Amino acid sequence: MRPEIADHITSLKPYVPGKPLEELERELGISGAIKLASNENPLGPSPLALKAMQAALATSQLYPDGAAFKLKERVAAYAGAQFEEIATGNGSNELLTLMVRTFCLQGDHAVIADHSFIAYRVIMQAAGVKWTSVPNVGDFQADVDAIIAAVKPGTRMVFLANPNNPTGTYITAPSLRRLLTEIPPEVIVVVDEAYHEYVQASDYASALSMRDVRENLIVARTFSKVFGLGGVRCGFMVGPSRLVDYVNRVREPFNCNTMAQVGARAALDDKDFIARSVKVNEEGRAIMEQGLAALADRHITWTPSQTNFLLVHLGDRDGEQIYDAMLREGVIVRPMRGYGLPNALRMTLGTPEQAQRCLKALEHALSH
Amino acid sequence: MRPEIADHITSLKPYVPGKPLEELERELGISGAIKLASNENPLGPSPLALKAMQAALATSQLYPDGAAFKLKERVAAYAGAQFEEIATGNGSNELLTLMVRTFCLQGDHAVIADHSFIAYRVIMQAAGVKWTSVPNVGDFQADVDAIIAAVKPGTRMVFLANPNNPTGTYITAPSLRRLLTEIPPEVIVVVDEAYHEYVQASDYASALSMRDVRENLIVARTFSKVFGLGGVRCGFMVGPSRLVDYVNRVREPFNCNTMAQVGARAALDDKDFIARSVKVNEEGRAIMEQGLAALADRHITWTPSQTNFLLVHLGDRDGEQIYDAMLREGVIVRPMRGYGLPNALRMTLGTPEQAQRCLKALEHALSH
Repeated sequence: MRPEIADHITSLKPYVPGKPLEELERELGISGAIKLASNENPLGPSPLALKAMQAALATSQLYPDGAAFKLKERVAAYAGAQFEEIATGNGSNELLTLMVRTFCLQGDHAVIADHSFIAYRVIMQAAGVKWTSVPNVGDFQADVDAIIAAVKPGTRMVFLANPNNPTGTYITAPSLRRLLTEIPPEVIVVVDEAYHEYVQASDYASALSMRDVRENLIVARTFSKVFGLGGVRCGFMVGPSRLVDYVNRVREPFNCNTMAQVGARAALDDKDFIARSVKVNEEGRAIMEQGLAALADRHITWTPSQTNFLLVHLGDRDGEQIYDAMLREGVIVRPMRGYGLPNALRMTLGTPEQAQRCLKALEHALSH
Repeated sequence: MRPEIADHITSLKPYVPGKPLEELERELGISGAIKLASNENPLGPSPLALKAMQAALATSQLYPDGAAFKLKERVAAYAGAQFEEIATGNGSNELLTLMVRTFCLQGDHAVIADHSFIAYRVIMQAAGVKWTSVPNVGDFQADVDAIIAAVKPGTRMVFLANPNNPTGTYITAPSLRRLLTEIPPEVIVVVDEAYHEYVQASDYASALSMRDVRENLIVARTFSKVFGLGGVRCGFMVGPSRLVDYVNRVREPFNCNTMAQVGARAALDDKDFIARSVKVNEEGRAIMEQGLAALADRHITWTPSQTNFLLVHLGDRDGEQIYDAMLREGVIVRPMRGYGLPNALRMTLGTPEQAQRCLKALEHALSH
């Protein structure tokens, strides 16, 4: 006799969402707070996307194009892939969910790295999939050899974030290529490149450039970061048409809404905005790193990052306490206890002004 | 040894989406075509929703409120339910998917009615759930007794659309109450009321008014029909907080996008628009029914409908042929072969002008 609700569902932790900015402000009796908690683009949405979405709003009564034809055509060109190799979704998060639903059965096995995007674990648990989480080496570097070694007969999928959230670290191009080569061909390797556009390291390369190495490779991207469209939910995946076809069978017919399709398509063309966004991010990074370096005597360190955020280590201080103190100064960052990092905070690199304010709030918080 | 892709996935039929209006026009070399294929609101989106969405677009870089707090608060008041009894989704279609993912395991059993919304079957097949589909009686009336009888030990869920798509028929309030009473309490009964606002029958009642009858009852609603928000994707479900809590654990944190949350909330307040939409629908219905009645000598009939569409029967004519002929006149309706009704077409009740044009196209098509 099975239980009313399956164990892998009842043991899922309820999702505790971050509070909206305005609600936090009301609770704390402050105004003008800044949110550096979700790695959003501080410049707002792509202006080209905004214009396209404004024009599309008036016909919101019509269902979206179920095939997302124009968006997928544009994405295919952007990714150097075929139309049939693209699927779009309600954020890349939905695509990751769809992959597990499409390719895994209850009891299947997958491999992830420690301190990688928490969604992988939630999605797998909801589907009754088991996983091995591989410890990192050095300063939160994914251990490529150990990941390869963790793949066993019966492993269906490997999920990697590159660069990784919440550590900001990356796998070098040669290491990634080796991993893609050495993992047995029947395993589906997913490389989640949500922060791709922010990477500055010269020895990084997108897995899109390594599709010749293995067939069972899926690359996921999002419009929620550099493109500034987190609120409208859009992501895409690139993979072999054989696998993409199955995902398209499993997804809901209208999973990708009209604003997402129209906005994302325009955002891909907004080269100016992307360049400006990356530049502002680098300015914010310079200020944050300089400010954090000045706190070295107070045991503040950070993990070098290729993204739009920094993982900041607080010595032996409790992350939640520093988070609370910064919150009272109107700066919202992200505590990392849920990621197994109780002495760290993740801070989005905002504009130079936001970075200054974040540093000031951190400094005050450390003084209490 | 399991197959690379599970049988219940490989046997899923690829989804063939309807073509966007503009693409059809280009293919056929026509302009000014009307789409009566997807039961959209011919008046467009709710003006209040449109205004609210326009205001929200500028901050599209921010992630949605993961708890959809304000929307759920408004929905709770609208549905006469508690906040904890509401979940929102990327259209009601996503919520139906989430219910199956949350409450069913591979091999579980469910009950549906013949010629009901095709999504139930697609969703269940994708999850490896088996089902019994119960034949209708009379003019596509759900057979309540047979549905009750089809529930067996091990049945997890029953999916009912009331009123039903694509037949337009409904289950009377006494019959629905009896069904909810007689089905064993451990079974989760889902009543999908996508077309609720259009119903005119005096012996209809929403299952929301029958929540006292059984605990394991979930009511699903959509913003894609009378509220005119099909393009932004929003739906809600009302059920016991115990079940809703599990759905909230399984869903993606940001499944309901910002436009959906903001637009849907405003649309619920747009009483004027809803009243106008229902009135226009009744005007379209009067014209369509009068026009179809005049085609009785050509063996055209229709199933009485409580929705914003009619299931039109073409005698022994092939639905696809009539569909094609109407298409060439710039009127897009929905063939029903996929629903096992090869001699029928589903036609959305548009504005009076659209209804006239639809009738003319049908008449021409019959003459060829």
